Amino acid sequence: MNLSKINEDAMAGTASHALVGRLGHEHVADIVEFLNAKTAQEATDVVAAMPLPWAIEVLDQPQFHDACEVIEALPQEKAVALLEGMSADRVVDVLRWVDNEARARLRNGMTPETRVAIDHLLTFPEGTAGSLMTTEFVSVPSDWTVQQTLDHVRAVEGSRETIYAIYVLDPVTRRLINTVTLRRLISGAPDANITTVAQPYAPITVSPTLSREEVARTISKYDFLAVPVVDTTGHIIGIVTVDDVIDAMIEEQTEDVQRMGGMEAIDEPYLDISFLQMIKKRAGWLCVLFLSEMLTTSAMQVFSDELEKAIVLALFIPLVMSSGGNSGSQATSLIIRALALRDVTLRDWWRVALRELPTGIVLGSILGVIGIIRIAVWQEAGIFDYGEYWRLLAVTIGAALIGIVTFGSMAGSLLPFALKRLGFDPATASAPFIATLVDVTGIVIYFSVAWLFLHGTIL
Amino acid sequence: MNLSKINEDAMAGTASHALVGRLGHEHVADIVEFLNAKTAQEATDVVAAMPLPWAIEVLDQPQFHDACEVIEALPQEKAVALLEGMSADRVVDVLRWVDNEARARLRNGMTPETRVAIDHLLTFPEGTAGSLMTTEFVSVPSDWTVQQTLDHVRAVEGSRETIYAIYVLDPVTRRLINTVTLRRLISGAPDANITTVAQPYAPITVSPTLSREEVARTISKYDFLAVPVVDTTGHIIGIVTVDDVIDAMIEEQTEDVQRMGGMEAIDEPYLDISFLQMIKKRAGWLCVLFLSEMLTTSAMQVFSDELEKAIVLALFIPLVMSSGGNSGSQATSLIIRALALRDVTLRDWWRVALRELPTGIVLGSILGVIGIIRIAVWQEAGIFDYGEYWRLLAVTIGAALIGIVTFGSMAGSLLPFALKRLGFDPATASAPFIATLVDVTGIVIYFSVAWLFLHGTIL
Repeated sequence: MNLSKINEDAMAGTASHALVGRLGHEHVADIVEFLNAKTAQEATDVVAAMPLPWAIEVLDQPQFHDACEVIEALPQEKAVALLEGMSADRVVDVLRWVDNEARARLRNGMTPETRVAIDHLLTFPEGTAGSLMTTEFVSVPSDWTVQQTLDHVRAVEGSRETIYAIYVLDPVTRRLINTVTLRRLISGAPDANITTVAQPYAPITVSPTLSREEVARTISKYDFLAVPVVDTTGHIIGIVTVDDVIDAMIEEQTEDVQRMGGMEAIDEPYLDISFLQMIKKRAGWLCVLFLSEMLTTSAMQVFSDELEKAIVLALFIPLVMSSGGNSGSQATSLIIRALALRDVTLRDWWRVALRELPTGIVLGSILGVIGIIRIAVWQEAGIFDYGEYWRLLAVTIGAALIGIVTFGSMAGSLLPFALKRLGFDPATASAPFIATLVDVTGIVIYFSVAWLFLHGTIL
Repeated sequence: MNLSKINEDAMAGTASHALVGRLGHEHVADIVEFLNAKTAQEATDVVAAMPLPWAIEVLDQPQFHDACEVIEALPQEKAVALLEGMSADRVVDVLRWVDNEARARLRNGMTPETRVAIDHLLTFPEGTAGSLMTTEFVSVPSDWTVQQTLDHVRAVEGSRETIYAIYVLDPVTRRLINTVTLRRLISGAPDANITTVAQPYAPITVSPTLSREEVARTISKYDFLAVPVVDTTGHIIGIVTVDDVIDAMIEEQTEDVQRMGGMEAIDEPYLDISFLQMIKKRAGWLCVLFLSEMLTTSAMQVFSDELEKAIVLALFIPLVMSSGGNSGSQATSLIIRALALRDVTLRDWWRVALRELPTGIVLGSILGVIGIIRIAVWQEAGIFDYGEYWRLLAVTIGAALIGIVTFGSMAGSLLPFALKRLGFDPATASAPFIATLVDVTGIVIYFSVAWLFLHGTIL
């Protein structure tokens, strides 16, 4: 890979044409990586200087960050020629992000067929099978032979996103009736009917409104290279290919991680997003959590008399509370993934609750014992004086930990179920969200336990 | 899909043979889902009653949970026949999890060729390209014609995991020199040399020791259906296919989410893992976090005199601390994903720091203003009396929030870099871990700010 050498030349200001020549025999994915490191203006110059088929290949890559900027900046004729050559699903992706004026202008330049196809794809909301699918697939009527199909595949190969799955349609109704893989097709007897090499099971399809997560699940479950998208009348309107599903999975994972981190998902690379956007995506949830967390102050105000009498109790508040938050975030993460993987379903909530109850008690007891030892050691070693009733204080901390960790585990595990039941993404049950919930309850548990054990002594 | 009907019959005790007959024309993935809902004993009975090719197909699915139990429970002869028919990478997966005695027994029953292949694959550690790869790929010497290759592909189709990528070897050294896709192959002129339809770029390969994350990145970057695994001498020793990569991605994601939740990753479904295992996976990190969080108690002990003088300060400790933890967990999640996606690299740490500093200050200021308003409203409305110096207290809370949220954002964003630099998975920079770090520092910041503003009044 000599892209770094090429890069130096680019920096030195060599003309784009010369640069294009030298990009030579690189894989398109490497060229995209190279262009992504450039400014949008530089990328536009390089793409403009490329031979058309090559530029189309570059723009077809979803990994190419500046595709919209390039398409907007290029002369109308060139831009339209590129869009005509690109795969339909990718054109839709690009057009979704260009401004309205440019979209109208580019749309007008297209051939009527492309325009109809694009307009149709644009009707499907982002993140659905319809928005991921391409209309460039291979289909043949079920009365064709293996040889006829093979000849057809050879003829259209260049203009199809994948030819590894061939869709067999009813010759009259044109409804999807079966799927043939290319590997079975090339092994079939040339004169035999195409259905002799078809899959033995009914075609597995998805609806255009299915979420990309569900499409990914279908592709991964059946180890497909592509899955057909079928409308309510049984007609195939497109296919979603495995490479698009992988990209969608990566995007989905990014969103989940960000949501679990307690913020809105951002759809641009970290260093590209504007400062204002970044604040907007983070401030919202941070404020919600802050406002909820204010309940801790209210709770503590209720117990301020107790606190005044036994200031020593304040020392352990962060320790006890954070343990509840930590056990809650463990349980939440476990259940978010278990729900996503379908290891548990909504109906399993009581099984989960029955597991988390003893788990929380055991984990809380372990921490409780450590906490009691800590107080005893500090007291006996003379590091800090917890007062006359330090033994009772230690028992209070231990008991509070059992209560709070158990509550944390229970609440953390059940919150994703509740969110899912209400139609939200369980990943929104982010660790900070559950920590806040547990914090507030934790204070109430802590002071209640303290009152129980210390009433009549220091309280 | 009439699996639920079949299920009822199974429940009613219909013999496995009859059941197998009725599973009929289901996709193997659906049969696996059906078997996963059964006990290991029931699954063994059903698999034992299946025709051999069908049973092989079922066991070949990584989604089949009970494969190890079934292989262990079946008679030696049947089990060996199944293993001989399964793909090599899957056999290795299964053998990794059966007990030593069964593994030795099954290994002895295999043909010498299978044994050698399996032993070789078993040498690669779990989670590497070597452990994911299959040795069942198609390769041809570079002096063959298109037609020769096509005939060969047709002949071996049944015994290869994928035939969509064909690997072209040097006829003498047998080193990998190029790749041909099946779609290009079927479009080639029959008499032309195979290299005429080869990819125009040098073959993109992975080493057997590469992590599965990196393999996934390669497959997704280049939109491959399979990537060749090549040893240091340039010989192809296997291929990793896209379906295995998708499974690996899903597993990796589960591990990341669980690690981010502050626990060890578990490799079994939530409801299957034993109680003791569950405690083990969670207690370790929980104790580490608990012990670290004890530093908050130590920090508060240092400030216990201040606390005694101004008990009102204790009321805001949970609020102020949790805000630092929340902003830290946002920053950590952002950077974990940005590193995973290569949006930022280790060398970008200072760019990230330069972004997080103003971000933290702005976010902290927003929360600070809300905090000040909260105190003012409660005081003026007579809900709670924060004392004579409530204005100074409000300013203290506001300033402490700016300091702590800024520290949280900075620490949260830089911790993943530090972990990666030290060779750990940045996902281990879990939200609770960063929250604990920020909690301890938060107390020091809080009391320092309080001393600064309240010294001479209530302190």
